[in-house]
Amino acid sequence: MPEHFADRLAGLVEERQSRVVLGLDPDPAKLWPDALSGDDAGGDPAARAAAAVAAHCRAAIEAAGPACVAVKPQLACFERLGAPGWEALAATRDAAREHGLLVLADGKRGDVPVTAAAYAQALVGSTPSPFGDVQGLGADCFTVNPLLGRDSLEPLVDAAAEHGAGVFALVSTSNPGASDLQDLDAGGSPVHEHVARLVDSLGAGHVGECGLSLAGAVTGATRPERLARLRELMPRAIFLLPGVGAQGGDPAALGAAFRPHPAAGLVTASRSIVNAYADRGGDPAAAAQAAAQELRSTTWNL
Amino acid sequence: MPEHFADRLAGLVEERQSRVVLGLDPDPAKLWPDALSGDDAGGDPAARAAAAVAAHCRAAIEAAGPACVAVKPQLACFERLGAPGWEALAATRDAAREHGLLVLADGKRGDVPVTAAAYAQALVGSTPSPFGDVQGLGADCFTVNPLLGRDSLEPLVDAAAEHGAGVFALVSTSNPGASDLQDLDAGGSPVHEHVARLVDSLGAGHVGECGLSLAGAVTGATRPERLARLRELMPRAIFLLPGVGAQGGDPAALGAAFRPHPAAGLVTASRSIVNAYADRGGDPAAAAQAAAQELRSTTWNL
Repeated sequence: MPEHFADRLAGLVEERQSRVVLGLDPDPAKLWPDALSGDDAGGDPAARAAAAVAAHCRAAIEAAGPACVAVKPQLACFERLGAPGWEALAATRDAAREHGLLVLADGKRGDVPVTAAAYAQALVGSTPSPFGDVQGLGADCFTVNPLLGRDSLEPLVDAAAEHGAGVFALVSTSNPGASDLQDLDAGGSPVHEHVARLVDSLGAGHVGECGLSLAGAVTGATRPERLARLRELMPRAIFLLPGVGAQGGDPAALGAAFRPHPAAGLVTASRSIVNAYADRGGDPAAAAQAAAQELRSTTWNL
Repeated sequence: MPEHFADRLAGLVEERQSRVVLGLDPDPAKLWPDALSGDDAGGDPAARAAAAVAAHCRAAIEAAGPACVAVKPQLACFERLGAPGWEALAATRDAAREHGLLVLADGKRGDVPVTAAAYAQALVGSTPSPFGDVQGLGADCFTVNPLLGRDSLEPLVDAAAEHGAGVFALVSTSNPGASDLQDLDAGGSPVHEHVARLVDSLGAGHVGECGLSLAGAVTGATRPERLARLRELMPRAIFLLPGVGAQGGDPAALGAAFRPHPAAGLVTASRSIVNAYADRGGDPAAAAQAAAQELRSTTWNL
């Protein structure tokens, strides 16, 4: 069996003294200027844009990566470039690995069991074919949407366990509309607490030596007041905390997420690192490096 | 403005006297034998498997397409083949268009607003880049996951409206685990009825001349007893009904979905058409054609 995801992550967190995940949401119209310099003016717009996106992501990883433990490519931003975008995603995965970072594929997939198994093949497994096995993305972990219930998540959790990977299920998201459904009161507790119990239950049989499970939870940093309750419901889950930075979440309010283990909470930031030069001025790489280091330091010393 | 999605669909439904959507969930290990015959034994497994998948989907469309109004490629089955899989998806889209079929991209996407907008670019729009606009998949409609609430769906509905496309939100899915969250009682009505109200509200400003909206609902055919209530809550929504065939749903029980308009309910079937030859014997194409025609006839005459 491969090493448990939570133990791999815990080792990296201790080694780098970091809980920062570098979000990569590349917009071809807002790339670092140097990412365009390799363009040879040939090929169709999709291939050229994808090559520039890959160069941009590699540069961001080189600059900010040392302060981080993982990168979180937003799959939508690669999918919108079609097949070349998928190649840019694979190149970004390679760049992350070269820099010792875990890859968190952020696609928020969720579907009926037979399709969930296909997503598992795409994300962490492989697909048998008459021509040999087709390797999937090889992500270290990925986000999932729990709306379809336990049987839709089990194939993903099982595949993650087999491959030493982790799963982060949406529990309480960082957008304003999250409350529409996630916060409905259902029998005395909000829907998102029912999801939290489901996540805890799914992870119960998959706890690493560090005491954390492979079944984690996305818990928006924009609602820090609920983190203590969510920690109570999911004592072994790793919390993925988006919403710091551009969305306004305050890192100092996230303490509850980081108990009971240094690796129990990961802070993800995208625009506030990659686009830091817009505010700070100067070189994009230097600004990203500084922003990532500051976030590392702030969230490590809580 | 392009023609409204519901009006385009309604015209096709009347012309073909069909409510059948051909689901395409290609498994490289279970393709029609002829789909492998074009393989030149060159290239990596992903490219070869993807080429065979594209040939398989084209053959299925040629055989079963005339009895259908749309194809529903399951994105997971293409994504697991990486960049070549994305090319197979584009080829399948082209084959569907050549046969006069709408393309329903089944990816069940759902994310925070900025990412939802990126998915909209991937599915029905295009992405500006320094090298020109990158065209997305160009789907006619697509499935979405509503767990993140109204603000996560609005960018997708707006993009659909702009491009004459349609959206199908998961309301009540066909898998057994669906009840875990979707059926929780929230203030006197189950969560899925809250979703239904949200879908109705999102579609209110987007009703076509036929009286149907571009905001549709996925309502599993495995729970026909709730269709009358869902129709009451979503009088203008097109219902997408998976679960007939391999999952055991009875087409004869779906009457409530098909009021108030011939195009108000679409029945989607995948394995029961494409793999019909396993039960019926004989040529895969002939069996698929017969199965699709039978489902067309059964569901048209309700």
